[in-house]
Amino acid sequence: MSDLAVTQADVTDAATRLTGVVRETPLLSHPALDAIAGRKLLVKAESLQRTGSFKFRGASNAVAQLPKGTSHVVAFSSGNHAQGVALAAQSHGLPATIIMPADAPVSKIKGTKGYGAQVATYDRATGSREEAAQPFLKKSGAQLIHPFDNPHVIAGQGTAGTEIIAQAAAQGVQQADVLVCTGGGGLASGIALAVQGTGLRVRTVEPEGFDDAARSLAQGSRVTNAATTGSICDAILTPSPGTLTFPILQEHAGPGLVVSDTEALRAAALAFTYLRIVLEPGGAVALAAALFKGKEQNGDAVIAVATGGNVDAEMFARILEHVPIPDAADGTSAW
Amino acid sequence: MSDLAVTQADVTDAATRLTGVVRETPLLSHPALDAIAGRKLLVKAESLQRTGSFKFRGASNAVAQLPKGTSHVVAFSSGNHAQGVALAAQSHGLPATIIMPADAPVSKIKGTKGYGAQVATYDRATGSREEAAQPFLKKSGAQLIHPFDNPHVIAGQGTAGTEIIAQAAAQGVQQADVLVCTGGGGLASGIALAVQGTGLRVRTVEPEGFDDAARSLAQGSRVTNAATTGSICDAILTPSPGTLTFPILQEHAGPGLVVSDTEALRAAALAFTYLRIVLEPGGAVALAAALFKGKEQNGDAVIAVATGGNVDAEMFARILEHVPIPDAADGTSAW
Repeated sequence: MSDLAVTQADVTDAATRLTGVVRETPLLSHPALDAIAGRKLLVKAESLQRTGSFKFRGASNAVAQLPKGTSHVVAFSSGNHAQGVALAAQSHGLPATIIMPADAPVSKIKGTKGYGAQVATYDRATGSREEAAQPFLKKSGAQLIHPFDNPHVIAGQGTAGTEIIAQAAAQGVQQADVLVCTGGGGLASGIALAVQGTGLRVRTVEPEGFDDAARSLAQGSRVTNAATTGSICDAILTPSPGTLTFPILQEHAGPGLVVSDTEALRAAALAFTYLRIVLEPGGAVALAAALFKGKEQNGDAVIAVATGGNVDAEMFARILEHVPIPDAADGTSAW
Repeated sequence: MSDLAVTQADVTDAATRLTGVVRETPLLSHPALDAIAGRKLLVKAESLQRTGSFKFRGASNAVAQLPKGTSHVVAFSSGNHAQGVALAAQSHGLPATIIMPADAPVSKIKGTKGYGAQVATYDRATGSREEAAQPFLKKSGAQLIHPFDNPHVIAGQGTAGTEIIAQAAAQGVQQADVLVCTGGGGLASGIALAVQGTGLRVRTVEPEGFDDAARSLAQGSRVTNAATTGSICDAILTPSPGTLTFPILQEHAGPGLVVSDTEALRAAALAFTYLRIVLEPGGAVALAAALFKGKEQNGDAVIAVATGGNVDAEMFARILEHVPIPDAADGTSAW
């Protein structure tokens, strides 16, 4: 065993702590998706988690373990961690300030405020969210909850993996890759810890041009993306894997997968059609890899984590344009 | 006790029979929806049931109890019962023929064929689905599964109520009206039986112009709608309550509620925004009543059953036009 910042026992503890706090989200499937994927495909619908993404798991686990004397929570986030922290802080009666990129979806900014948090914005192309958070962190009693490089956050996200193990087994699946939409790697590393010792293995999935995790895993050290903007997958445009998350992924995850923005839109459209769930593009990349990158996978089954559903109506209208044209005559579909 | 065709014990038996067959669907909520409703609002997301609607429950319970010698299943349906019967028959290795209106959403016809069923269509304005089913029923070994006037179907639909009782109690709700989208009344009557003796009470919800259940309950006998087409809520345009379902509703349900098509669209838009689920208009009328007919309700909490999510991209684009315009400045919304 190497010296990782988080252990499988931490995930187990988090699962106990979060019982009744987080929703157990369903593991969905549809024969039409199996047919496209070429294997049994199970979809963990974390879009149905409270605040609309898995981020509420890690945020809740972290807020529950803040040091005594904490009077104020600070976070930076493109929107999903923001909402997760905002609700977790509100549930614990703590004020929260969230630093968000100015170009974050309005629904995410609105959602964050809706959970009682104060929002401050910065320019994603020219500014740094870490810098923008500094003034708020100087206040006495303030505590930053990092979106992924925080052991409690990683352990909390891992509770999605704890659920997946039991739910997949109940559906007869015990050997499979678990594809995870990946920004900084908090969810992927948490699930990787959770599934240690089972027949499940995590694989990161990222959008083209933002494949820092895949490239870092391939070359054995953390690399940074050239671009900071330019994909519709706003939720997962993190510059590089985390210092805590990357060693976990290196030890426990398989090779990373990469999909195009168009494949993410098509996956979200298929999730609309067959699973009746709402996914944001960044929350659909793992499903896209399961559906369209089958040649890069092995085995009879695959599990895709659908990480978030916080999407504006305008973007969802774009997704609807990718819904397969039904051909009622023979029951098949075509794009 | 009056002499009803189905009992609470039948629902309990069905719940046992269907364990591991139907999905336990989540009971969702969001503070923004509570605020609109003016009370705690819990949404039973049957749109996440296998085949995209609650209908798979009743169909599975009925197919599991078909008489020996059954060689062929027949059903008539606007689409959701069709898919439920098709998958239930397929699961039991039985061929199925489904009679559907020619104007049913293409996605529903396609979904039905996707589960291996044969589809025959009829004209909803000029024909009768009962007549259209006759040629197929004349074959030896054929069995009709009526969409609502079948005791096994009613008991199977009631299992949604069994789940609601436990899930609502876990969220601290034991006294509430349970609003149910109503066509022929199979789901409403099944849930009404399930919740007998609890603090929950069923109320039917229908679209304007198709409020046969509400009017029948008000006058104490079954009445028929003047129109057979003309609402976007295609799933629930049944002419009158069933002969088996109506006596159950009369004994156990409260007064019926009625909403407009526009209210159904707005409810589906809010479900998209805050619950990240896909609802069809007919599957959103109960949520619409919970949100917009609060003055016709009492109590601290309300439960709305979101019955189906089988909607074409074109109709969902209409729903998206009703998404509240977010006002990021203050976190409030307006249409």
